[in-house]
Amino acid sequence: MEAKPPGLQDNTADLDRLQQALASLLADGCTISIPYACMMRVARGFRAADYGGFALVIHGENEWKIIDFLLEEPKMIAAMALDLGTTHLEATLLNLQNGEKVARADMKNSQIIYGTDILSRIHHATGERRQQKKPGADFQDPGLMELQNAIICSINTLAEKLAENAGVAKNEVYAISVSGNTTMAHLFLGLDPYHICREPYIPLFNRAAGVEAGQLKITIHPLAPVFIMPSIGSYFGGDLVSGILASGMAESDQTRMLIDVGTNAEVVLGNSEWMIACAGAAGPALEGGVARMGMRAEPGAIEYIAIDPTSYELVFRTIANVKPKGLCGSGLIDLVAALYLANIIDIRGKFRDPGKEKNPDRAEFMKKHLMQKDAVFYFVVNPEVLEESAEAVILEQIDLDAMIRSKAAMYAILRTLTNQVGLGFADLEEITVAGAFGCHINPQCAITLGMLPDLPLSVYKPIGNSSLLGAEQVLLDKNSRLECEKIVSRITYLELNVNQEFMIRFSGARFIPHTDPSLFPSVPPFTESPSN
Amino acid sequence: MEAKPPGLQDNTADLDRLQQALASLLADGCTISIPYACMMRVARGFRAADYGGFALVIHGENEWKIIDFLLEEPKMIAAMALDLGTTHLEATLLNLQNGEKVARADMKNSQIIYGTDILSRIHHATGERRQQKKPGADFQDPGLMELQNAIICSINTLAEKLAENAGVAKNEVYAISVSGNTTMAHLFLGLDPYHICREPYIPLFNRAAGVEAGQLKITIHPLAPVFIMPSIGSYFGGDLVSGILASGMAESDQTRMLIDVGTNAEVVLGNSEWMIACAGAAGPALEGGVARMGMRAEPGAIEYIAIDPTSYELVFRTIANVKPKGLCGSGLIDLVAALYLANIIDIRGKFRDPGKEKNPDRAEFMKKHLMQKDAVFYFVVNPEVLEESAEAVILEQIDLDAMIRSKAAMYAILRTLTNQVGLGFADLEEITVAGAFGCHINPQCAITLGMLPDLPLSVYKPIGNSSLLGAEQVLLDKNSRLECEKIVSRITYLELNVNQEFMIRFSGARFIPHTDPSLFPSVPPFTESPSN
Repeated sequence: MEAKPPGLQDNTADLDRLQQALASLLADGCTISIPYACMMRVARGFRAADYGGFALVIHGENEWKIIDFLLEEPKMIAAMALDLGTTHLEATLLNLQNGEKVARADMKNSQIIYGTDILSRIHHATGERRQQKKPGADFQDPGLMELQNAIICSINTLAEKLAENAGVAKNEVYAISVSGNTTMAHLFLGLDPYHICREPYIPLFNRAAGVEAGQLKITIHPLAPVFIMPSIGSYFGGDLVSGILASGMAESDQTRMLIDVGTNAEVVLGNSEWMIACAGAAGPALEGGVARMGMRAEPGAIEYIAIDPTSYELVFRTIANVKPKGLCGSGLIDLVAALYLANIIDIRGKFRDPGKEKNPDRAEFMKKHLMQKDAVFYFVVNPEVLEESAEAVILEQIDLDAMIRSKAAMYAILRTLTNQVGLGFADLEEITVAGAFGCHINPQCAITLGMLPDLPLSVYKPIGNSSLLGAEQVLLDKNSRLECEKIVSRITYLELNVNQEFMIRFSGARFIPHTDPSLFPSVPPFTESPSN
Repeated sequence: MEAKPPGLQDNTADLDRLQQALASLLADGCTISIPYACMMRVARGFRAADYGGFALVIHGENEWKIIDFLLEEPKMIAAMALDLGTTHLEATLLNLQNGEKVARADMKNSQIIYGTDILSRIHHATGERRQQKKPGADFQDPGLMELQNAIICSINTLAEKLAENAGVAKNEVYAISVSGNTTMAHLFLGLDPYHICREPYIPLFNRAAGVEAGQLKITIHPLAPVFIMPSIGSYFGGDLVSGILASGMAESDQTRMLIDVGTNAEVVLGNSEWMIACAGAAGPALEGGVARMGMRAEPGAIEYIAIDPTSYELVFRTIANVKPKGLCGSGLIDLVAALYLANIIDIRGKFRDPGKEKNPDRAEFMKKHLMQKDAVFYFVVNPEVLEESAEAVILEQIDLDAMIRSKAAMYAILRTLTNQVGLGFADLEEITVAGAFGCHINPQCAITLGMLPDLPLSVYKPIGNSSLLGAEQVLLDKNSRLECEKIVSRITYLELNVNQEFMIRFSGARFIPHTDPSLFPSVPPFTESPSN
């Protein structure tokens, strides 16, 4: 940017001169504001640069805002996108000048020490609160402050890592976007989540605008805008809005579906005209929250596993190719599908009795891998390590049962949702599968289990961490921020807890692949009789 | 405000609910924002009031902003208007609910200890600065911080007085408007005034938006908006813009003139179509800055004085009817006009020699009141106190000379400005005279001196402290804030320092009433010959 220097015939004030020069550069008619906190710094920079230099402007709501002034062209304009998960944080640093990802980092959510799930965090945040029915307007919940501090510290650690990896200073990170569920957004801003988990489940806020990093003690540039993905309600957070944005569904003429499996399974169906969404407890068994050997998709997690149905050879692969520690969601799905196809479990998901097995190869395999405890079978993935007294990866009947419930819930959700708008699965042009789940699972295995509908595999599109992707998108494109508002205003939420159809469909889906196998023509029928 | 309580069928977030209720109440289509700093307080108040209560909203630029929430209807909504003078601060507290003034207070500008005038303050503010040609962007001038602290302390003292007098708490003052000259505005915000007094005289800023009281450590409500009157340039401050607003000139179909005498005489001519302004050093002699016995219009100042031209009886009145301490502007004008009409001074403003006086009554009066020092006469208003060895109020020849220069400058300014747009004085429907000067002077005396044009007295309208009045107006009426922007964009500034016409007219006006007495038909001609 270059402005004409002042003179006796042109005694425009320094900041007016800068605003005029920028207005003619941006040429979109929006006003350009300068926050009080940086007026002096900006004006001095502008003079020091002899009325040239580089003004850092961000697009707020209906206006541009100058947040800093640089004498020399920066090597990059860094901004941080953050997926604020309940258990895990994942962040990337973008160079806004070319859209490139210049660094990524992740870490556990340090709030876990105050509670592993949303409910226990809300209780921790509002523990002292419960003793006072109507707290004073300025009452500070100590628990809430602890949780906010914890998350801000984590974010600052991530910001530091990202900046270091990208070779910029922390205060050269000029924006941050945050995508998280509704409770996480409340804890992030230190706002009372008390009513989120209490009937009628009212969040304090769904959107927060105009927040600056400095106000939250986030140690990037203090005037960096904090874009918080708007949420829709207590159980429909900004992370899902972010996912919808990233999926492109809201811009699509074709009807699509987005499936995001985290703690809950959240599903959205729609196109640029309409959207309908629901959430259900289909997730935990798939995410490592329930199965004894379940774990996140981290080094040591078995992410792929197969059993040859003829030779009964078992092969698996772990993330980072290290010693197996457990099963992540995709490994679990692979394993259960393989057990079904090899007739080790029956259509109810129960281990068959090796003693009653007639096929000698299968009987041998079952004897090697199935063990008993309290007269209940469990499956050992790698029995060979037991000889070395090492811990093996196992799958218990209880895990299998949880898995069947999860997959049944998932299918019932998908079916109820599509039926709600009078569509069949065949009407879907694309099913976007988000999350680590989406990246690693073999859709064919999920179809075998009857978890996902029996559609051509090309219909399924994994997109990874859609919450993070949406957060990246709002940093790169101001229209995406408006798009989020459109998504929020256009979504219809379907409450499943009181939905009769869902309950009926859930019962029907508690078999592999389904009580009605004709819904899954690609899945081979089960040949053996149930084990007992 | 009343909102419907939430329920399972209506799980709108608390703050969304509040915003919706307010939007339907305000019904002007503007968005309603809630700053992060008060989200929790507002949401809790709204719940505590069972979705009723009172949201405090202020009209920012293109939006409403909630700054607090009250459970009960406040007895008043207080806002502070402040005239930030170089030497003096004057403030009022308004109840925004009915526009009433509920308190007023004034005090000296405590920055005076760092310098009595603008120039010395700028030097103090930037003293250390001068050693570094290009200070770092974040360099804090210690002098500037001292000056800012001083003024903020003064404002806090005033705010305390006002709140106490009105019976409200300080943090129940929900807005402040500030009207001051360009340098004072810079010092108020702690922004570098270095270039204001250096060619080409560029202020750092003319307008500052979105400032909150808390950012400046003003101890009213921390989110109270600080409305700062926009300025036009280094020598055309927000105080004058405020005055123009208060005069109503910018809305008037008739052409009017505004005369504001402070440290400078500032004059604006115009109507709703156009405005032209200029400033000149016509003030000091009238404001107590120059004359030895000059003083502000405070208790003890002689504000009225007359000499009967036949009986030579001298009568005067002091403010608050206490012992006379000096002469304020109006007293000075009265006195000089009376001395001229009684033929004690001649048309050049020189004391005549009592020894050469032929009229016995006048000779007696002159002998009583005129004394000599170093062969120069001076006038004693109250010689009787000399017998009690008390200090008398005197007027020296040097004061008279300064007075003549001031009045000549004033008349020359007015004449040059009207001539610039091809008008005569008779074309003016109204001349608004602002300041203490305007309130107290007798326009007839000012006409006698040839300071103000010889027009019917009904043309002159005193309005008092127009800077303060404008500041009050922007608190009461949001359109007035837009009006200020219009004024700023519409004014043409006439530079008098390089104006040849002004210099010629100034010389012609250095007689009482003028070298061309036909311009002042209402003023009796001088009958005696000059004294030497």
